[in-house]
Amino acid sequence: MSEIILGGNQYGKAENRVVRIYRDTPRHEIHDINVSTCLRGDFTAAHLEGDQSDVLPTDTQKQTAYAYAKEKGLLSIEDYGLALARHFVGDVGPVVGARVEIDEYAWERAVVDGAGHDHTFIRKGQEVRTAAITVDDVGEYVVGGLKELVILKSTGSEFADFLEDPYTILEPTHDRVMATSLTAQWRFTTTDVDWEAVYAGVKTQLVKQFAVVQSLALQQTLYHMGRAVLETFPEITEVRLAAPNKHHFVYDLTPFGLENPNEVFNADDRPYGFIQATVLRDDSPPAGAAWDSYQGWLA
Amino acid sequence: MSEIILGGNQYGKAENRVVRIYRDTPRHEIHDINVSTCLRGDFTAAHLEGDQSDVLPTDTQKQTAYAYAKEKGLLSIEDYGLALARHFVGDVGPVVGARVEIDEYAWERAVVDGAGHDHTFIRKGQEVRTAAITVDDVGEYVVGGLKELVILKSTGSEFADFLEDPYTILEPTHDRVMATSLTAQWRFTTTDVDWEAVYAGVKTQLVKQFAVVQSLALQQTLYHMGRAVLETFPEITEVRLAAPNKHHFVYDLTPFGLENPNEVFNADDRPYGFIQATVLRDDSPPAGAAWDSYQGWLA
Amino acid sequence: MSEIILGGNQYGKAENRVVRIYRDTPRHEIHDINVSTCLRGDFTAAHLEGDQSDVLPTDTQKQTAYAYAKEKGLLSIEDYGLALARHFVGDVGPVVGARVEIDEYAWERAVVDGAGHDHTFIRKGQEVRTAAITVDDVGEYVVGGLKELVILKSTGSEFADFLEDPYTILEPTHDRVMATSLTAQWRFTTTDVDWEAVYAGVKTQLVKQFAVVQSLALQQTLYHMGRAVLETFPEITEVRLAAPNKHHFVYDLTPFGLENPNEVFNADDRPYGFIQATVLRDDSPPAGAAWDSYQGWLA
Amino acid sequence: MSEIILGGNQYGKAENRVVRIYRDTPRHEIHDINVSTCLRGDFTAAHLEGDQSDVLPTDTQKQTAYAYAKEKGLLSIEDYGLALARHFVGDVGPVVGARVEIDEYAWERAVVDGAGHDHTFIRKGQEVRTAAITVDDVGEYVVGGLKELVILKSTGSEFADFLEDPYTILEPTHDRVMATSLTAQWRFTTTDVDWEAVYAGVKTQLVKQFAVVQSLALQQTLYHMGRAVLETFPEITEVRLAAPNKHHFVYDLTPFGLENPNEVFNADDRPYGFIQATVLRDDSPPAGAAWDSYQGWLA
Repeated sequence: MSEIILGGNQYGKAENRVVRIYRDTPRHEIHDINVSTCLRGDFTAAHLEGDQSDVLPTDTQKQTAYAYAKEKGLLSIEDYGLALARHFVGDVGPVVGARVEIDEYAWERAVVDGAGHDHTFIRKGQEVRTAAITVDDVGEYVVGGLKELVILKSTGSEFADFLEDPYTILEPTHDRVMATSLTAQWRFTTTDVDWEAVYAGVKTQLVKQFAVVQSLALQQTLYHMGRAVLETFPEITEVRLAAPNKHHFVYDLTPFGLENPNEVFNADDRPYGFIQATVLRDDSPPAGAAWDSYQGWLA
Repeated sequence: MSEIILGGNQYGKAENRVVRIYRDTPRHEIHDINVSTCLRGDFTAAHLEGDQSDVLPTDTQKQTAYAYAKEKGLLSIEDYGLALARHFVGDVGPVVGARVEIDEYAWERAVVDGAGHDHTFIRKGQEVRTAAITVDDVGEYVVGGLKELVILKSTGSEFADFLEDPYTILEPTHDRVMATSLTAQWRFTTTDVDWEAVYAGVKTQLVKQFAVVQSLALQQTLYHMGRAVLETFPEITEVRLAAPNKHHFVYDLTPFGLENPNEVFNADDRPYGFIQATVLRDDSPPAGAAWDSYQGWLA
Repeated sequence: MSEIILGGNQYGKAENRVVRIYRDTPRHEIHDINVSTCLRGDFTAAHLEGDQSDVLPTDTQKQTAYAYAKEKGLLSIEDYGLALARHFVGDVGPVVGARVEIDEYAWERAVVDGAGHDHTFIRKGQEVRTAAITVDDVGEYVVGGLKELVILKSTGSEFADFLEDPYTILEPTHDRVMATSLTAQWRFTTTDVDWEAVYAGVKTQLVKQFAVVQSLALQQTLYHMGRAVLETFPEITEVRLAAPNKHHFVYDLTPFGLENPNEVFNADDRPYGFIQATVLRDDSPPAGAAWDSYQGWLA
Repeated sequence: MSEIILGGNQYGKAENRVVRIYRDTPRHEIHDINVSTCLRGDFTAAHLEGDQSDVLPTDTQKQTAYAYAKEKGLLSIEDYGLALARHFVGDVGPVVGARVEIDEYAWERAVVDGAGHDHTFIRKGQEVRTAAITVDDVGEYVVGGLKELVILKSTGSEFADFLEDPYTILEPTHDRVMATSLTAQWRFTTTDVDWEAVYAGVKTQLVKQFAVVQSLALQQTLYHMGRAVLETFPEITEVRLAAPNKHHFVYDLTPFGLENPNEVFNADDRPYGFIQATVLRDDSPPAGAAWDSYQGWLA
């Protein structure tokens, strides 16, 4: 007769909207994040008997996230996340592993009379920068990333010579619009990194490859984006890319006697292709818990 | 005994996602809009008896929106919207009034090796530009606008000396974060306008006033934003502004022995203050149907 | 030379998420609302000079909304909204008009061992009930309503014999799926109403007419829905209806040798038809500020 | 020197909105789903060289999803998903594994004159039913589920005697509101299941345990929900539960001289606690790819 047991579990406080202003001089700086923290360890008693004696409240995790924005500062999100994760594992007895996930929203200075203003900022838009930091009894893992980078090329993309079966009615094309809202995450092998410079450099590579590769498939584009990042940054060992294929359908204007040589498109919502690929070094160190996300299932 | 009658009514096709690529040279241009069209007139028979003989299908309105992106082009959204609205009123017998509402999403060239790429673009983020064009038997009305301009100042904002009643517990402050996601719409008195230049100029004024006014209340800031637009652009006669007060609460770090001199904030979601103000010239011509939005109620 | 002046303006606190539990007996009751309040009057000094002496803070409005859930109770949202609006106009000197808008989320008792549980509830889904209450120096206006009532009929809907122009390629049909996410609002001529009974009765009429009318157009269906409400409830004088036509396109299965007699559909997102109609009595009393919504523009 | 290689990858068509009407008699039936399909296998050539000869287009996957709603029918989503996944693996050469994920939206008959109408339906709200079917060279895996079941208890929940550290300021409580928007997924060990009956039964157990367990922590409630499902259904071997703790904070009314014995709450948005737990049999067969979701990362 089988027993019923507790499997993987984790808990924390999600989506703390911490804003940190640096105002030591009249020229202020702003850092604006959405941070989630979660703790892992043996919380069996809490689940089976409701015994909370090993459970640090999620409210405490929230307080810590805000307090650390002052105590440790909030400059590079990777450093801030490492400080939080190390604290939970190092200072809170029952905690074996901590996961900190951060979205960062960029702001730029408002331009007034041609110059950046001291204390007025406009939300920059474009992509959201992300970081996922895990500290546990095996090691420390930092995954940088971005999401919602909406990028489009109006030519230089093909899709042809694909596999056909009885349900295939798609016409091949050698010139189409390709657009996506890119998610990318990259795993570091060290924490001794110039986070700001690497972030900017990775984004530059991703954008460049999207632009310059003559795309025969979104898969190919993703692979080359990941490859370029690895070739440029030795401290990165693995890149994961996910890309919805945001279809732009050429609109049929023939009923109205109009030609439409790839000029007028319907940007469709659903369904959309969705492609994922990982590119990595063949000697990558073990990923440990680097990819165990907070809101995905923990095995 | 009262009769039951038909009152205000309108119908159309909402949210056509039209993308127009200009590709006459290798250096492409992209225009990306969400356009809604609606028609007004005497459609009593359609409502009372289901008689469609005076009803141009919403599908036809969609086809026209796509066709006009080719036939008339899609450069300034105000011109494109005017062309559509004039067509519906001028060419479709039963139509007395047409309303065209457009959101435009800005893209910027991807930077590759230091230069803007010919055919790769990144969605710019920041604000969405809007236009609302109405043509009817009274006249033509163009309302320019923007929305979702998220702007914040980290000092230079106060709120004090307000009215108090028994439910007032708010503490006055002379230094707070002020943030909003601005919506603004401005009514033109002519269609002979350099739409691109005026749009850029209005945005510059709105941002500048938000930055430079020492704010004693969000109301005051809005008024000065509207006033500056009117002072700069004689072709604009009325400005309407709506601004959620996106509260950034100073986080209480005293339990942890930490000072927090306006450095660490919680960016709260709900509730939020919400302020609206109209600023206009005292000799503004009648607004007619300029402000009768498609998805608001038609009186 | 024209003067620049302040036009319509209003301000308040939006989206207070108030939950009220009645727990006087072990069988609890729950009322769950999202309430927004706004104030109108002469706030010129606040706009022009930043003088707040006539401005009751939006924070105070929030406190009042929560306090009234206890002081006045939160049963019918129309009564609660009237109490709030009368208080702001009656007790706060500079306030000339108050607008209270409420969304109510319905919960039903969890069923445990075949019976409704005393203190466990499941969010009911289906429509959101709404109320919009305005009190000003002209009178008191109550508008009941609902939104997000997603309703579909799989036959009994036609669209044919419509106006055609050169952009018309739509084929007529005598059997289609018709679906919408209905918004309806109804204006009362009195506040002496059994709000709960009337709400249930209006919803019954709306649903019934959608079902039983052989629809020749969505316009016709809306008209008959409004008409039935007015015929049933003498205390209601005007009904406004807004309905996106949520297109369900018959999917073309002929390439696969399959017939599709209105069995398999693609439920499309955008664009969608969007239809509005007002049905009212020809002797309706003036609407005053009944329809001046908080987040629409105030003329 | 390390090589750069392709790691895990998958591709498919996400969010096909398939609606199937059964209309063989005047009493219609409706099934309304959002289905995503994805394929796994050796697609190295597509990534490295852009060679599509082994790639079945995502458009073909879409066509198949619609065609199968007719060919195979769309009754239980688990059967429909199995048919699709088996087809892709069995009939399309290069495909080694297929994943089909389905959300199902429930409709109920509109009530007209006291009876359920033949062909008019109202979207039911409450939870979304889910299924995740994986077929690969190891086996077949069916995971049933639900999400967005919003459930609340107004008493019978405590949180006390928790671990404290210097950042802990939370007060213990022995009577609080507990609310969540539940996600649950359960893994079957067979495909010979009465899917409809089991779904109803699992939901009944989840709701019952939420109601009757005197909760000392959300973790404990989740564990007992999972345990009850396993005790009731021998064909289920593992249950995964994820639950945001939707905080309802007792509103402080003391400044207004009002008591608030757990009657008036602020339903807060962010941050929220977020708790996950897996409950399983100690002799569960290997999960294989059962939990490898389409939009999560594939290792």
